[in-house]
Amino acid sequence: MAIARGYAATDASKPLTPFTFDRREPRDDDVVIDIKYCGVCHSDIHQARNEWGNSTFPMVPGHEIVGIVRAVGSRVTRFKLGDRVGVGCFVDSCTTCASRDLDLEQYLPGLVPTYNGFESDGQTPTQGGYSDHIVVKEGYVLSIPENLPLNAAAPLLCAGITLYSPLRHWKAGPGKKVAIVGMGGLGHMGVKFAHAMGAEVTVLSQSLSKKEDGLKLGADHYYATNDPETFTALAGRFDLIICTVAAEIDWNAYLTLLKVDGDFVLVGIPENPVPVHAFSLVPARRSISGSMIGSIKETQEMLDFCGEHGIVSEIETIGIDEINGAFERVIKSDVRYRFVIDMASIKA
Amino acid sequence: MAIARGYAATDASKPLTPFTFDRREPRDDDVVIDIKYCGVCHSDIHQARNEWGNSTFPMVPGHEIVGIVRAVGSRVTRFKLGDRVGVGCFVDSCTTCASRDLDLEQYLPGLVPTYNGFESDGQTPTQGGYSDHIVVKEGYVLSIPENLPLNAAAPLLCAGITLYSPLRHWKAGPGKKVAIVGMGGLGHMGVKFAHAMGAEVTVLSQSLSKKEDGLKLGADHYYATNDPETFTALAGRFDLIICTVAAEIDWNAYLTLLKVDGDFVLVGIPENPVPVHAFSLVPARRSISGSMIGSIKETQEMLDFCGEHGIVSEIETIGIDEINGAFERVIKSDVRYRFVIDMASIKA
Repeated sequence: MAIARGYAATDASKPLTPFTFDRREPRDDDVVIDIKYCGVCHSDIHQARNEWGNSTFPMVPGHEIVGIVRAVGSRVTRFKLGDRVGVGCFVDSCTTCASRDLDLEQYLPGLVPTYNGFESDGQTPTQGGYSDHIVVKEGYVLSIPENLPLNAAAPLLCAGITLYSPLRHWKAGPGKKVAIVGMGGLGHMGVKFAHAMGAEVTVLSQSLSKKEDGLKLGADHYYATNDPETFTALAGRFDLIICTVAAEIDWNAYLTLLKVDGDFVLVGIPENPVPVHAFSLVPARRSISGSMIGSIKETQEMLDFCGEHGIVSEIETIGIDEINGAFERVIKSDVRYRFVIDMASIKA
Repeated sequence: MAIARGYAATDASKPLTPFTFDRREPRDDDVVIDIKYCGVCHSDIHQARNEWGNSTFPMVPGHEIVGIVRAVGSRVTRFKLGDRVGVGCFVDSCTTCASRDLDLEQYLPGLVPTYNGFESDGQTPTQGGYSDHIVVKEGYVLSIPENLPLNAAAPLLCAGITLYSPLRHWKAGPGKKVAIVGMGGLGHMGVKFAHAMGAEVTVLSQSLSKKEDGLKLGADHYYATNDPETFTALAGRFDLIICTVAAEIDWNAYLTLLKVDGDFVLVGIPENPVPVHAFSLVPARRSISGSMIGSIKETQEMLDFCGEHGIVSEIETIGIDEINGAFERVIKSDVRYRFVIDMASIKA
């Protein structure tokens, strides 16, 4: 065992506080990673506060992890000391059934989340990236391209793949009109990816306050959804809408912005059911779908794509002692566009 | 002008009564059809009673029309006197935009419905198939294969294509597990088509009362949805679920029956919004979609498929003076499985 230092939620109502815990001795297929940076995802807050009702405590959040390989097990072949690596939302999965072959392991019941879950032994709690190191099976470790700064690459591991995967699956590319709903940690990655894939990109944001950023990051158009004219002007416009917001919005109004055969894809999890009227779907063969992160294979593909296109997240770097204030600012959407914790700030 | 005899709703609260009206003189691209049979669709009732709020009166319903060509205009090339033909849910459409080239004209705003609409002049009301003849542009007339009985072929023009199109679009076929929700006028056609396409077919019906019919028509499995065990037994089972019912059902329970990447397709129009929880979609990349009839090209393809496979609807034939009683029985789902009006019953 090795002692890890991090920050944990000890119950749903308390702020995160310094916490030490054990990491397992590396097995022969494990990689030991010195964590350099960890992104702050809204789902860290949902889970630290037990807003999804499935939390176990104490909980060290964090699944946008980047760092440097400190040690490798004897059977590890793809990584060596000093490599720049990342870990995303899961650290193990079912390896037996057909969906694994399809590289869709993120949708399988055997998934082991990076934190707030249990190892495949069903007993050992997993702990995340708000900590100084982590021990992960080689098959769940990603390579970070050399040209990407480590801190700004961290959010690619969740925010990045969450947008990249549906954009690929629903074929964003040249000739396609893609809208990104929400210009936050997820949304701004969607703008960068959809633009790099060659699609015509429109941001649908509550107001125009981030318009300048949106256009700079690659959007061709930027509309305020608090202006009813937007829904008239854009009726039937889009092949694909990726919705990154979990707030209560007028879903059926957004569905009317889709062309025939258009897809509306949820990547956020609205708390209440989405009331979809059949008349919003049937007369234009539209679909509403959901998508969740990506497979390990697709996450590596995304990171390589980021390397080729020089894509990283827009970030604000914080010390780990600032995490509770950062949570409050994330809730208020007061971050441009993702907090990343510099793990050098963990006190010895 | 020629006088047509039919049955019409004169307002939303009255039963259908005998009605005479004018049909236009055939233009050079028109086909004049002696109507032999017309199917009774649930949407006839919705519209005759103005349940969708868009009805104009007097209204002659009926869009599952089959008959024999009585006359053709000078430029008509594909039909001649005596041909067996059909007319479905629309009799004209926008011919200029891109979607027409994609054979998706059923989803375009320029669609002219067979009844309860206006010709492309925007003024002349269209009147449907509960009548002795109809005059239709050649491009919207379908050929009925010689081996199909005319009366049982009538429901193919709406009920048939409504199921055929989504089964084709979402690729029902060998190796695919398809569920049909509802064993009525639409559902029983879905069973026949999905079976003929080579899929493994399951009927999800409220009770087992029509199980024997379902298995006879091609279902491999038949489950009662009033048994909660059904939802446990079939969790994650299906690639595709086609939902033909418009009643309030537990939508999210049905969504859990889909595999990863599965599609749930609405072909009925539930009155209230469908409350879809993001957790029913996101963790398995599922979709909920809608589909509406099919293009003229696809409708002919469907009819040819029916000819090859000997597929027609299961029907009860009625005289037109029985139509109001038939409406009541359709509402009670008391028909196996589609009423078809024999137009020989129209009094001269």
